[in-house]
Amino acid sequence: MCRWAAYRGTPIHLEQIVSAPGHSLIDQSHCATHAKTATNGDGFGIAWYGERPEPGLYRDVLPAWSDCNLKSLARQIRSPLFLAHVRASTGGATSRDNCHPFVQGRWSFMHNGQIAGFEQIRRPMEAALSDKHYRARHGSTDSELLFLLALEFGLDENPAAAFAAAIRLALAESARAGVKELIRFTAAFSDGEALYAIRYATDAHAPTLYSAPMCGGLGHCLVSEPFQDADAKWHEIPAGSMVTLTAGGMSSARFSPLQTEAMQIAAVA
Amino acid sequence: MCRWAAYRGTPIHLEQIVSAPGHSLIDQSHCATHAKTATNGDGFGIAWYGERPEPGLYRDVLPAWSDCNLKSLARQIRSPLFLAHVRASTGGATSRDNCHPFVQGRWSFMHNGQIAGFEQIRRPMEAALSDKHYRARHGSTDSELLFLLALEFGLDENPAAAFAAAIRLALAESARAGVKELIRFTAAFSDGEALYAIRYATDAHAPTLYSAPMCGGLGHCLVSEPFQDADAKWHEIPAGSMVTLTAGGMSSARFSPLQTEAMQIAAVA
Amino acid sequence: MCRWAAYRGTPIHLEQIVSAPGHSLIDQSHCATHAKTATNGDGFGIAWYGERPEPGLYRDVLPAWSDCNLKSLARQIRSPLFLAHVRASTGGATSRDNCHPFVQGRWSFMHNGQIAGFEQIRRPMEAALSDKHYRARHGSTDSELLFLLALEFGLDENPAAAFAAAIRLALAESARAGVKELIRFTAAFSDGEALYAIRYATDAHAPTLYSAPMCGGLGHCLVSEPFQDADAKWHEIPAGSMVTLTAGGMSSARFSPLQTEAMQIAAVA
Amino acid sequence: MCRWAAYRGTPIHLEQIVSAPGHSLIDQSHCATHAKTATNGDGFGIAWYGERPEPGLYRDVLPAWSDCNLKSLARQIRSPLFLAHVRASTGGATSRDNCHPFVQGRWSFMHNGQIAGFEQIRRPMEAALSDKHYRARHGSTDSELLFLLALEFGLDENPAAAFAAAIRLALAESARAGVKELIRFTAAFSDGEALYAIRYATDAHAPTLYSAPMCGGLGHCLVSEPFQDADAKWHEIPAGSMVTLTAGGMSSARFSPLQTEAMQIAAVA
Repeated sequence: MCRWAAYRGTPIHLEQIVSAPGHSLIDQSHCATHAKTATNGDGFGIAWYGERPEPGLYRDVLPAWSDCNLKSLARQIRSPLFLAHVRASTGGATSRDNCHPFVQGRWSFMHNGQIAGFEQIRRPMEAALSDKHYRARHGSTDSELLFLLALEFGLDENPAAAFAAAIRLALAESARAGVKELIRFTAAFSDGEALYAIRYATDAHAPTLYSAPMCGGLGHCLVSEPFQDADAKWHEIPAGSMVTLTAGGMSSARFSPLQTEAMQIAAVA
Repeated sequence: MCRWAAYRGTPIHLEQIVSAPGHSLIDQSHCATHAKTATNGDGFGIAWYGERPEPGLYRDVLPAWSDCNLKSLARQIRSPLFLAHVRASTGGATSRDNCHPFVQGRWSFMHNGQIAGFEQIRRPMEAALSDKHYRARHGSTDSELLFLLALEFGLDENPAAAFAAAIRLALAESARAGVKELIRFTAAFSDGEALYAIRYATDAHAPTLYSAPMCGGLGHCLVSEPFQDADAKWHEIPAGSMVTLTAGGMSSARFSPLQTEAMQIAAVA
Repeated sequence: MCRWAAYRGTPIHLEQIVSAPGHSLIDQSHCATHAKTATNGDGFGIAWYGERPEPGLYRDVLPAWSDCNLKSLARQIRSPLFLAHVRASTGGATSRDNCHPFVQGRWSFMHNGQIAGFEQIRRPMEAALSDKHYRARHGSTDSELLFLLALEFGLDENPAAAFAAAIRLALAESARAGVKELIRFTAAFSDGEALYAIRYATDAHAPTLYSAPMCGGLGHCLVSEPFQDADAKWHEIPAGSMVTLTAGGMSSARFSPLQTEAMQIAAVA
Repeated sequence: MCRWAAYRGTPIHLEQIVSAPGHSLIDQSHCATHAKTATNGDGFGIAWYGERPEPGLYRDVLPAWSDCNLKSLARQIRSPLFLAHVRASTGGATSRDNCHPFVQGRWSFMHNGQIAGFEQIRRPMEAALSDKHYRARHGSTDSELLFLLALEFGLDENPAAAFAAAIRLALAESARAGVKELIRFTAAFSDGEALYAIRYATDAHAPTLYSAPMCGGLGHCLVSEPFQDADAKWHEIPAGSMVTLTAGGMSSARFSPLQTEAMQIAAVA
């Protein structure tokens, strides 16, 4: 069970969300005493947008809480748009290539969730990648593969449709392989302009997703689990949703990849 | 709060105690869901005796549970005497030099506990080291320093007296510095022949220490906390004790560094 | 340009070949002042056979010369059969999964050389793997892939034929992709019984391979480049050869994967 | 023999000096084929000034050339003042705490050189630190110690006098210990405003120091060794000099710690 946080809005130092004591991603992931799940000590990563179209990327396999570099970077770097992730591996190797976020060109992506029986369907899923994206696969996680498939299926044009197609592919391959068709998927991703998040599962247990305004409404934070002690007023995003944060604010839409009708967009607070 | 396990007896593969699923040091340190303390993800180490007088030493700053090398080593290496430790730092830097066990010559040492206000008395304690042992200080932990002081104070001749003197020095420096005089100290150490363990604190909260026979009585295991699911019948060692495991079996003695009379030895089970 | 050394014979401590000052693998790879190629600082690995059918494996991404763990392990572990490798990456990621040796079951493998234009033919080469071996691919190197292909093509039954088939596949895919057909391949591998080495290239520049008797003839060492200061009398193995070390001594055979006639075995020294 | 580069002037991306192919610090440290010394694979570090008084710090023990994080950071971070260092250890442990630059408050420092027989005089030199700076010692290098001593001896008020006093202390302790009195010291350091560099040795072999204008004169670069292929016109700074870069340009002064008369400042270029 990974944890992540993402931010879009007026530029803030990463540390406000990544490493501030008592109410930040790292602090929560370390002090898992009260948590239902084990601590998140299998690596971490941050992707942030600055002056260039492509994000910066810093990932390592140490526990986030013991990484002095991360602390210093989070204190120095100010950004209007960033993703941060702490990993709790459920068996995969601990290597930088398997740490979130993943970056391709100007896109960044991170994920909490899983594909049931992934090892059984990994190969046919990889076969759906064009040569270009196949070459871009550096690790072995289901998360990176879903990201590459979304790029394959038109992430640049229609993010919701692209991830819907990636999820449908996984389910189709599960069915073909006789594996239980189960996906849980709570993810955040960005092209450097908008910040997107999806909360979805084929069963009733979609990993949680929350949003909160920050900086007096000049920014928004999206998190997989709310920070316990923060002042932020967390709003739970319902399962089957896709949230989009732009300069114009936050909007939400249904995300139901298994339904053929076009997914409709409805503005939200 | 660190965790450790030590073994002496008929040679066994390290994995039996270090990494076996469900009832080993690593497994317990990872799944801290039910534990009162945070998980132990700030490094680990093993010291084992083989053909040479000096032990082998393998330490790293990754969480033990994600280290493939450790898994392979624990599966290959068989030893009649070894120490294993997983670290939960309470603020110190995560570096290999700060990981237990510490090794000097044929001696190995590992520790769970703390000296209150250590940063205030670290310098005068280091001043008590001879040049030889001062040069041997590679890290910054109180644990390594207590070990070096014990070497300074005659560990080769009288282990109980040596650690008693190190503890008295720490308390004297605490008093001099006006720091609260508090030490908690549950440690295991070996010279390659005997395996020793001490459970001691100046207050009522000495970190726990347990022993259990293994291999049908051909070996003994000492642990800071019992493995939850193991078959082993754990016996709690009372605070203020020093336990010695030799070819002749296990003996126990009072360990009361603040009392001037000679500490008496009493055979035990 | 990687460097490696392998040993088979009477059990010796790994340090005799791996880390002894002045005449060992690590020493040579560090002091590359006189060498034609850059130093080997992109990770290292050792695989050694002990009591179990499967070898132990220790790999890390640090330069070998600065790894205290490696020094200690090489000093403690004694083995009749082991492989050691230091890596100089030519562009690939530095991760443990890309460090040699690679291990599958009881087989170990390490390599110096390259496939020209590998990125262009990586995908069709991976497609030749059965699901079982596809799942066993953890890294992204050409070396690991050649090893998995050899397993696919019958390494258990006929090592020479298996690697010949893997090399032919690579050349066929190069031709199909319009990439220059060039392989340089100097590798060592073992099943825990015999130690094999191949020196081969499609051009005139097969990476070097040398052998030398050790321990008064009770063991043999194979190296990619001779240690400069060692007493050992190095014998150069000609390109297009496969060497086999067993309890019965060393034998050599032609290795010419592009010729259809059976490769013939000729006893040597 | 370490290598370093420092920059002050109009803000530039770190990559221009740190990681650009063909003419940057990392590139030069990797391709040491032509160099007189071994490659610099024992860690690296960057310290850069941004919006805060204290610099950001990123250090790791991997070879700089294989660190994807460094490449990404150097590409994203733009700074008017930064220090970058690649390390070639001459025996000390490879740990982050021993990697340059060192940072204390708003000061940063990095160094190429050595104190002869440092292990013999390390203890009395450490004894000259006040408790405050003694506590700030995290590693074991002579470089960090000279930096802390300079802080002790008034770095905030008079950088030249502070380092002169630190060097005199080292020489005095060498004399007292009967060790050969030899220091070689080419260092760069900054308080976030000015960038300083010193080139000094007690013998004729002061490690080199070069400067070059950059960005059409809007910035200056100081390096321990010139980049081979760069367009920059390198100017060698003579031994026994201290260079200061401020908004007003570059000035140079004699640096002769063993002479009692005040060191005089002479404007340059």
